[in-house]
This record gives sequence, structure tokens and C-alpha cells, in this order.
Amino acid sequence: MMNRERHPHLRNKEDTVMLPALSRVAVCGGTHGNELSGVYLVHERLKRRKKSQVMEPVAVVTVMSNPRAVQRCVRYTETDLNRCFTHAMLSLSASEQTSYELVRSQELNSLLGPKGSAEAMDLICDLHNTTANMGLCLITYSDSDWICLHICKYLQREMATIPVRYIHYDIPRSEAYSLDSVGKHGFAMEIGPQPHGLIRANIFMAMQEAVQLLLDWVRLFNSGAQFEGGSVDVYTLVKNIDYPRDPHTHTIIAAVHPDLQDRDFCLLHPGDPMFLSFSGETLRYKGKEPLYPFFINESAYYEKAVALSLARRRKVEIPAIRSSRM
Amino acid sequence: MMNRERHPHLRNKEDTVMLPALSRVAVCGGTHGNELSGVYLVHERLKRRKKSQVMEPVAVVTVMSNPRAVQRCVRYTETDLNRCFTHAMLSLSASEQTSYELVRSQELNSLLGPKGSAEAMDLICDLHNTTANMGLCLITYSDSDWICLHICKYLQREMATIPVRYIHYDIPRSEAYSLDSVGKHGFAMEIGPQPHGLIRANIFMAMQEAVQLLLDWVRLFNSGAQFEGGSVDVYTLVKNIDYPRDPHTHTIIAAVHPDLQDRDFCLLHPGDPMFLSFSGETLRYKGKEPLYPFFINESAYYEKAVALSLARRRKVEIPAIRSSRM
Repeated sequence: MMNRERHPHLRNKEDTVMLPALSRVAVCGGTHGNELSGVYLVHERLKRRKKSQVMEPVAVVTVMSNPRAVQRCVRYTETDLNRCFTHAMLSLSASEQTSYELVRSQELNSLLGPKGSAEAMDLICDLHNTTANMGLCLITYSDSDWICLHICKYLQREMATIPVRYIHYDIPRSEAYSLDSVGKHGFAMEIGPQPHGLIRANIFMAMQEAVQLLLDWVRLFNSGAQFEGGSVDVYTLVKNIDYPRDPHTHTIIAAVHPDLQDRDFCLLHPGDPMFLSFSGETLRYKGKEPLYPFFINESAYYEKAVALSLARRRKVEIPAIRSSRM
Repeated sequence: MMNRERHPHLRNKEDTVMLPALSRVAVCGGTHGNELSGVYLVHERLKRRKKSQVMEPVAVVTVMSNPRAVQRCVRYTETDLNRCFTHAMLSLSASEQTSYELVRSQELNSLLGPKGSAEAMDLICDLHNTTANMGLCLITYSDSDWICLHICKYLQREMATIPVRYIHYDIPRSEAYSLDSVGKHGFAMEIGPQPHGLIRANIFMAMQEAVQLLLDWVRLFNSGAQFEGGSVDVYTLVKNIDYPRDPHTHTIIAAVHPDLQDRDFCLLHPGDPMFLSFSGETLRYKGKEPLYPFFINESAYYEKAVALSLARRRKVEIPAIRSSRM
């Protein structure tokens, strides 16, 4: 029996949505080989499993997604693995697989998918770090995935040390390009700030805690616990902004403004400082609508022409849910 | 005429040391291609020079040290360029030059040296960034180079936004391995914290200010100004400490402890927390002598088996100096 005093979110309601249990869950790290919290969290999980053969009440598979990139401590060796999981790329024939990462994406799709099939993992949590001051974010392709939204709500309540937010990329599932899109449910768990190629103990510990809480939630859900409805703030990507560049050489000519640096999820108003040019000039946000910046000055996105992303925020009402398999 | 009200350090003394003027100075960046403050500072200097043909009162050459690594935004392409400037490596024959960086080190030695010769640059300032919270450090191979020590003293007084320190690696000049060792005088100017592969505007501006002040100092010195004596705290490297590792796999099993992270140059006492293992155990500093930590959790040093460096601090008295060429 659940202890309803200790778990006040476990209540019965008439409008409860019944959802299938999450019997197979994947925790992946090293999808980007230099994002070290996830890399070492996966190392530790694989080591502990070998040692103690712990039986978990849910089948959890732990995966080092890009071992070659991990070995070299780089984001990727030939192409960004976490852009290889569209239906189109997963359907390329062997002869068209030009890079290690494309081959690896199809291996992972066999292991954790196939994407869109009944055999796919019920939930994929893919661990990432960012240099941006984003706290912990769940990044998804849906603003109506009650499982992901309930997990977010649970982490928001239980995580003591770090803010938790929900980011939504409004892209059809077939065009969704990241590893987590292979699962029936899934998200990237993004934690920062942490420079790539190193571990900061506080960020590592936050990720450890979040993964533990995530698996706790899945166990509660599978055991038949009911999770009450409520609301979650969802940040939906509106657009990306590139660094100002020299029109001829395309070299960056400005850095993120000190007033904006580290202020992820603080509302950016038209006219607010956005960049500081290397010659000292302040460049301002020219949009007409106040929006929420995130991924501010993520080092891996210099090559992707993204200095920051901007999101609209809205409150999404979520129903009470319960597992249909008791 | 010098304005002695504005420049109170310009006084005459009997025990003044006369030193040759610094007529040729090199400012180098991109020796590590992903340390972006130096990369973009060099970009900007090269661009401005092209545009305005500014005549400087001292011959300053600006150098992008490792353009191939800069292009790829990596520390190096084959081997760490900033370990290639020993006499032994600079003497290798063309057939023994196995890497791009070895070839490039000999090109740079021709351009800025040859190391140890009368033709070498009078002063080389090589720009670096670190992920460690070190502020601005001049890293040198001498604790009695009055030029470098006076420049440090000047920066300590003039830099408003960032602490300035002097680090000494006690290595003979012939074995000194870094680019700055090619000059008659030289230092690495190391500024952090800044993750590699991105620019933080505050760190970039601090580097810009420091280079400007350095060149101001050289102009004052060359113009015959006298700089009064005094003292500078010198941090001499005692030893490096590696991350705790699995004895079989050599995988890292602990991160820098949260109590030590970001506390560069705060005295570390025997028994103080040093690492936090991934399973939650605190590992303590076992040395017998309190020492000053620096380069705490520098991401580029994971591959060099250095989690932090430890230094002894002492006060070095420096004489008044003046240029012998008026």
C-alpha cells in the first residue's frame, strides 16, 4: 500500500487518465562524449550493476551512447549523433551511412526502438550538460505528454538544489532528431552550467538525484499510484538567435552581453542588451515580443549559429494519471 | 615629459637596475585553438591593424599561433603546441617532425626567436583561458625576471575588475616548453574562469584591458620612465595532484570537492576536503604543508592527469628599474 501521508500527490479523482505502465526504461549518457556528468553517471551505473546485480522493480537499461566520442572526450567524432534520429536518417541504407555516428544511431534505434514501433522503450532519459545557466531542463517534442509533464512536476517538487523546467520543441515526431525521440516517451535531461570536458560535483550530484527521482517516480507509477493533476509551465521554442558576424568572413564580432549572460529564463524585453561587440558596442534585442532566453552562450552551438534560443511560456493543465496495468 | 603626478611609480632612486628597452613585443593568441578570448582578441587586433595602419610606439607583432586548431575550435590537432618549445623539440630535424604542431612550433621559433638568441623577441605575451577560477595570472619560468614582475605589479595596481597573480614554474629555460619561453622575456597570460569553446564578455574585456595596460607599460618603460621597487607575491609550483582513478581502468572516480571548486589561491590545509567520489565519499588533502591550489578542475588537464596544482607563496623583493636606452 502507498503511504498517502508521505505522498500527498497520490489521490483518486474521477477524471483520471489511465496510461500504460512504463516497464522498460533507458537511461543514456555520453550521447555527446564531452558532457561528462552523464558519461560518469553511466560509468557508475554500469559498474554498480556489474558488482551487485541489483534487481530493479522496473527494467532499466543503461547505455553509453557514443563510446568513441567519450573515449576522445569530444562532442562527436564525425557528425552530431543527437541529430541523427529522424525517420529519414534512420532509414538510410548501409551504403549511405557515411559516418560512425550515423551507423551508431541505427544501432541505438535497434537497441532502444525501433522508433515509432510497439517494441520501443517506454521511456528514454538522455543525459546532457550545457555551459548555459539553465538548471535542470527536460527537453521534449510534446506539450501534451502527460508522463513527461508529470515527471517534470515531480522533479520540480522534489529537487532541492536546482530549478527544474520543461522545454518544448514543436517538431513532428518523425522529424524529431534526438535520441530520446526513439522512445514512446522521452526527454533530454539537460543540466548546467557545466563546461564541457569536466565535471562539477554539484552538477553531477544534481543529475544523480534527478535520475534517482525519475526512477522512483516510474516505480510509483507502475505500482498503481495515482498522481494528481495540476499545471506545468511549458517553454516552447520560438526562434534561435545567432551571434553577430562579419558579413564577409562570418567571424563572430560580439559576445553575449554581460547583462544577459547566465540569465537563462529571465524575460528578455525589446530593447534589452543582447550582445557586446568586441569594440565595445552594445547591441539590443530587436524583437517586438518579450520572450524567455535559454541556451545562452552554449559552447556547442557556436557551430550551429545559435547564441541563444527564445521561448514563449504558457501554463499547461495536466490531468491526474494512473497506470492502467495494476 | 612624463607626468609624475599621474604616474606616482615613476621616481628616481640610486639603486635602480638599468635594463634594455623592449623594442619588439609579440602578442600571441590561439596557441590553444579553443581558448577563445585570445583567439578573438588576436582577430580584432589583426583587423584593426589592417584597417587603420595604427603606428604603435613599440613594434608589436600579433600572431595567431595555431590557426588549424582555431579553425576546428580544438585545443590542438595532433599534439599540444604549447608543449613543443623545449630546445630538444625545436632542434628536431624535418624528418622527425611528426605532427602539424611540431612543424608549427619551429615556424613560430623562426618568427619570434630563435629561442635563446639575440634576435628573439624582447617580450612574448601568450594569451590563454582556463576553466579554473584563477582570475588573471602571469605564468613564467623565473622568479627574478624584473620585467615580468614589474608588469605584474603594474597590472595588479591598474586592473579594476580582476585579481592578478604571478605563477612561477621552476624549470630551466632550455626545458621550458611553452611558446612564451621563446622570447627574452615572456609569460602566458592566463584568464578564467571561461569554458573552452566560448567567450564570456567579462573575461574577454579583462584580457583586452590587460593587453592594453601591458603595452602602455612597455611604452612607459621604453620612454625612460623609472618604475619604483617593491614586492610581488610569487606562487611557485610544488606539485600536481591527479583525480582519484580506478586502479584497473584508470577511469576517474571522483570530482573536485564542492568546497574546493572555484577556490583557486585559497590556502588548502592538510585534512581539507579535496575530492568527492561519485559514490559520495569525501577524500581529503593528505599533504603535510598548507599550499595554494590553482588550475582547480581545468578541463584541458584531465588528459594530463592534473586535477589541481599546488604552490608555495613567497614575497619577492624587486628593485626599481629603468630602460638603459633613452
